Amino acid sequence: MDIYDAIKKRRDVRSWFSNEKIPDETISKILLAGHYAPSVGLSEPWNFIIIKDINTRKKIKELVDKKRSEFYNSLPEDKKEKFEKIKIEGIIESYANIAVTCDFNRKSPNILGRTFIKETSEYSTVLAIENMWLAARSENIGIGWVSFFNPEDVKKILNVPDEIKLVAYLTLGKLTEYHNKSELEEKHWEKRHNLSEYIFMDKWNNKPDDNFMNIIKNSML
Amino acid sequence: MDIYDAIKKRRDVRSWFSNEKIPDETISKILLAGHYAPSVGLSEPWNFIIIKDINTRKKIKELVDKKRSEFYNSLPEDKKEKFEKIKIEGIIESYANIAVTCDFNRKSPNILGRTFIKETSEYSTVLAIENMWLAARSENIGIGWVSFFNPEDVKKILNVPDEIKLVAYLTLGKLTEYHNKSELEEKHWEKRHNLSEYIFMDKWNNKPDDNFMNIIKNSML
Repeated sequence: MDIYDAIKKRRDVRSWFSNEKIPDETISKILLAGHYAPSVGLSEPWNFIIIKDINTRKKIKELVDKKRSEFYNSLPEDKKEKFEKIKIEGIIESYANIAVTCDFNRKSPNILGRTFIKETSEYSTVLAIENMWLAARSENIGIGWVSFFNPEDVKKILNVPDEIKLVAYLTLGKLTEYHNKSELEEKHWEKRHNLSEYIFMDKWNNKPDDNFMNIIKNSML
Repeated sequence: MDIYDAIKKRRDVRSWFSNEKIPDETISKILLAGHYAPSVGLSEPWNFIIIKDINTRKKIKELVDKKRSEFYNSLPEDKKEKFEKIKIEGIIESYANIAVTCDFNRKSPNILGRTFIKETSEYSTVLAIENMWLAARSENIGIGWVSFFNPEDVKKILNVPDEIKLVAYLTLGKLTEYHNKSELEEKHWEKRHNLSEYIFMDKWNNKPDDNFMNIIKNSML
């Protein structure tokens, strides 16, 4: 698939997962796409825990269900109504889950580029996740990133050591439907803004000239 | 460009930048690729500051040069020798720099998916950066991520408000040479490991069965 196509068509999927088998070769290719990501000082701080076991997934879904209620209760009335219609995870219906972690001690000490910004290790892990997301899209596999839990609770279920950070919990599966818009847009939770709102030139709050602004406003992938 | 090709051929570039003009349309397309990234609760927490001004870039290079010496002095002798040969930034030689920031308050309160993991905002910004990196690669433009500074010092130079986090400082330019390996590998600073070292099944430290492990070991993009 063309790179721009994959970027445009990538969705964060929660509904419409099928649990149809994904061949090990395909999962492996998606993980390898992640492994090809840039990492600070070539530290490759990532681990990938593939979770197929349904009992493990049920335990994690329980954590998510609790936090979903907490979030729901915190919302104002108009937001509550919208949130009710939104699915926030496909932990059980997807074919597999993948927990992605970050090991700050991998290849340390002297990690080149990490000394003054410790987060660059976590950021490397996130770069790997975007590669996986795009690779999955090109294989017609949807990925959803689930974040309604306390990461320490998930780490306990997966036996992840204290010093390792859980960066993401992903769900993967073939799809029964493909939607062109994100579920949050479709269900009127939130809107996309035009890129031009987010661009400055040389300094914060300094907008590019009109010519460049027009190019940005009308840019398409 | 094919998605797997872009992922394989993406490099973190410091040497071999040309300052040949990149058309505004191309820069705009690369930024739009970033803007298409997934973001927690569709919060789009990113801003992109395009830095063409040479005086601003000189000030940032000064910060980097200082931190380069600090890092050099902290190294054991054998590492010092290797590090001397490694270029860590192309701030001046590249065509433009782009600072990428994260606004934790964008579209808040009630950011869906952010309540229990605040870092998901920064992570969204990093997902955008990987999209930009791959889009740039497909346009034959190299990107290098510079991280040898205290982010607060860079924020001061760019007038970035206190509450906004600087996530990345990128340098962009056409290339005079393309290398198949990362500079850190070429100069024997660090090695890539096989993906199979980083994979677990269902729980931390539990390796997949031999069949799956062989598939992972022999996987190719």
